[in-house]
Amino acid sequence: MNRGFFISIEGLDGAGKSTQHALLAKHLAENGEKVLPLREPGATDVGEKIRAILKDKTFQHPPAAEVELLLFLASRAQLVRERIMPALQSGYVVLCDRFIDSTIAYQCGGRGISSKSISALHRFASGGLVPDLTILLDLAPEEGFRRINIGRKTALDRIEEQSMDFFRRVHKSYGRIAIKNPQRVVVLDGSLPPDSIGEKVRTTVCERIYRFRNDVNRSMRGPAI
Amino acid sequence: MNRGFFISIEGLDGAGKSTQHALLAKHLAENGEKVLPLREPGATDVGEKIRAILKDKTFQHPPAAEVELLLFLASRAQLVRERIMPALQSGYVVLCDRFIDSTIAYQCGGRGISSKSISALHRFASGGLVPDLTILLDLAPEEGFRRINIGRKTALDRIEEQSMDFFRRVHKSYGRIAIKNPQRVVVLDGSLPPDSIGEKVRTTVCERIYRFRNDVNRSMRGPAI
Repeated sequence: MNRGFFISIEGLDGAGKSTQHALLAKHLAENGEKVLPLREPGATDVGEKIRAILKDKTFQHPPAAEVELLLFLASRAQLVRERIMPALQSGYVVLCDRFIDSTIAYQCGGRGISSKSISALHRFASGGLVPDLTILLDLAPEEGFRRINIGRKTALDRIEEQSMDFFRRVHKSYGRIAIKNPQRVVVLDGSLPPDSIGEKVRTTVCERIYRFRNDVNRSMRGPAI
Repeated sequence: MNRGFFISIEGLDGAGKSTQHALLAKHLAENGEKVLPLREPGATDVGEKIRAILKDKTFQHPPAAEVELLLFLASRAQLVRERIMPALQSGYVVLCDRFIDSTIAYQCGGRGISSKSISALHRFASGGLVPDLTILLDLAPEEGFRRINIGRKTALDRIEEQSMDFFRRVHKSYGRIAIKNPQRVVVLDGSLPPDSIGEKVRTTVCERIYRFRNDVNRSMRGPAI
């Protein structure tokens, strides 16, 4: 049986998530996998409308931290039900640019909402879904900040505009997540050249999917006699 | 001290909430009160954008029940922080068309989300804010359904289009809320003529505000000697 596999790519803005997301999707498709690449927030009609609110810079009173969290989770709740769960049940490799760890790093680490509240809300929103594998692209917050502020022509969005201090807290929180979840989270050096990171991502992902499917098949065969 | 007072008006669609909301706001203003009339979802820039998503009928995949709840709560979280709390602190009578009880009646009673989840989420979203007084306009679900389906020119929205059965479950849930909160919730007969209901609403509200302010003043004076 070709059971689905759920991968999230995480890291600070500027860490190269989108690049690796695209490279990995291409690589997996070339290997004959059914791949569903997604991004958060968004990736459903409802979610894209929520994303527009989160990215809107024109509010005189921007969304409070709690409102921001509820909107991220509303987008996720729709994504999980409308796309992720059906795809996993159909054997897809689901590849999500950000998932639960972004919520913890940005809303708890960054904005100070309690991790207990976030965990409870995530459980409600996503039915407890956790990625099978998370690739965390680690980058010094100063470097991430430098990257997103240099050479771009469009204005920074509200979240990107937060202070360096915010970036440092988010980075620290990602570090704690990696320590707490050594099996699920694989940390890769985001300061390496994209091709070099891409190679590491491919190796990690292929090995993990291989082991995952072997485990699934073994458990379906029952214990060895 | 003229401390603020928080009133919510609740009931099925068609029960006459909007009419009573407007009549009461006018009456209180004529009595020299500072009044802030609000509606849910909406009433802030962020909330109105969320309202637009909730009222949107064009989604091929409409928001799941959990998504709907998270969006309602996101709108409320912004409303509480941006408008309700500052107004109450400035001595306003805040008059809200729907609040927590709508969430319980529609999302728990109507859509079957557990009341435990809803209570926890409401506490997170609103910081535990509960109205000082709730006017529940009681109406047989059949009559509510008849009223909203007759004589209107615009199309019904998604929530209004739900079946009679949904209406009956919501009505039952409102009944349970009233029984559980006899001090806070005053039930009025929504089948009476609007002027007659309006008279009862005014009497109830004036008496409650009067008693509330006397209690506040007494507690500020300390115990009688």
